[in-house]
Parts: sequence; C-alpha cells; structure tokens
Amino acid sequence: MTDTDQQDTFRLDAIGVVHSPYETPTDAPHQGFADDAESELEIFETYADALAGIEDVLRVTVVYWADQADRSEWVGDDGVGAFARRSPNRPNPLNICTCTVLETDSRRMRVRGLDAVDGSPLVDIKPAIQAER
Amino acid sequence: MTDTDQQDTFRLDAIGVVHSPYETPTDAPHQGFADDAESELEIFETYADALAGIEDVLRVTVVYWADQADRSEWVGDDGVGAFARRSPNRPNPLNICTCTVLETDSRRMRVRGLDAVDGSPLVDIKPAIQAER
Repeated sequence: MTDTDQQDTFRLDAIGVVHSPYETPTDAPHQGFADDAESELEIFETYADALAGIEDVLRVTVVYWADQADRSEWVGDDGVGAFARRSPNRPNPLNICTCTVLETDSRRMRVRGLDAVDGSPLVDIKPAIQAER
Repeated sequence: MTDTDQQDTFRLDAIGVVHSPYETPTDAPHQGFADDAESELEIFETYADALAGIEDVLRVTVVYWADQADRSEWVGDDGVGAFARRSPNRPNPLNICTCTVLETDSRRMRVRGLDAVDGSPLVDIKPAIQAER
C-alpha cells in the first residue's frame, strides 16, 4: 500500500427513479446503443428544486445505478477488464447515458434514448456538453 | 411520499486517485471545457485487473468524486438548479469528463484533457462511446 492507496467510500443518494419499457437487463439496449424508446425520469420531492431551468435543456446526461449488476465481477470471460468495457458489472455500477429531453414538469422528465431498466435508481442528471451529444 | 419516493443510498468505493496540475477547484477548467493539460490516473492495487485491455482504448470517460463540492447546494444564485448545470455542487457530486489516453501501464494511465483537481477520488473509467467523444 502506498500512502495514496487508501480506499475511501462515499454515500450516493438516489435522487429519483427511472420508469422505462425495459423490464430486465436483457431487454435493455447494450450500453451506449440505446434505441428510440421513451422513458420517464421521476425526481424525488426532496430534489425537485434542482430541476429548475431544465426546460431549456435539449439533451441530458443521465447517471443511474445499475442495481442488478455484479460489482464483484471486474474481468470478462474474454479477459477484458471493467474499465475497458461498458458492462454494468464494475466496481461502482454507474451507468451513463445521454438522451433527448421531450417534456419536463416540476418532478418528471420524459426522455428518448435512455438504456436503463425500469426501476433503476437515478443518481444524477446533467445538461449534456457538446462532447457527449 | 409516493411508494416510489424511497430514498435509497449506495456505497461508492474510490478505485484510485487523480494526480493533476490543478491544485484547487479555481485552477481547474470549467466542467466540460478542459484544456490540454496532462494528468495521471492511479488505480488502487485492488482494482488493477479491471484495467486489462485498456491499452486498446483511445478515449476514456472518467467519473470522479468532487470531494470539495457542496452537496447541499442545489440551486445557483441565478435560480438554475443542479440538474440543469454542470456545477460540481449537486446532490451527488459526480463529475464526468472524457479525455484522451496517452500511455497506460498496469496501474497508471496518463491522460490529456481531464478537468479534475489534484487528489480527486476516481470512481469509474469507461471507454468513451461515440456520443461522448
């Protein structure tokens, strides 16, 4: 162990939940290859004011927790590690997907192109920057 | 509270640490507008095998914890909420930055274009998909 080899942990709070047409991980599109299905992002009451101004955003980068992933599986059968692939099986199963905003209200957003399974916990929403579009 | 309004929490493990030329958040480039500075990603021993295959990856999307952020500050002075801006001050201070891989070894990666402050905890590394490049 070097002196920077300290393994801190952080608390991630679910800020909402995904309602999507994908019932299981097998139904959902391969990470990064989302189809045109529509999903709804429901933001919990506590975090609703963090959505202020979202009506001006056309594309969002959504971060959700892949709660059905195996976070102890870091190397695939082909020998490729989690940091060199998009698999949800990784030390911190954070999935990132950029999608199009269709409609927003005070606690809900309808989006197109999200690859999340129904019921996935939301952890962040950011306006997509050019590089992510 | 609706029945989906349950606020789960998740444990995020630091998988490494950023060594960068930016000493304070003020020094670091504005989120999403990184300059060409070089940084080093040091992966902790525990997670080193998750890097297998990284030598074939040209661009990576790095997720790091903005540990100097104020996670209770969700609305800016201009009334814009955290989910409509890229500020590190957000309920879950996860920053996402896509950068170029310059060199890799078993536990380290040298990258160009990362906007992280020196010492930021790393939480994930993914090969960048086309949309993020």
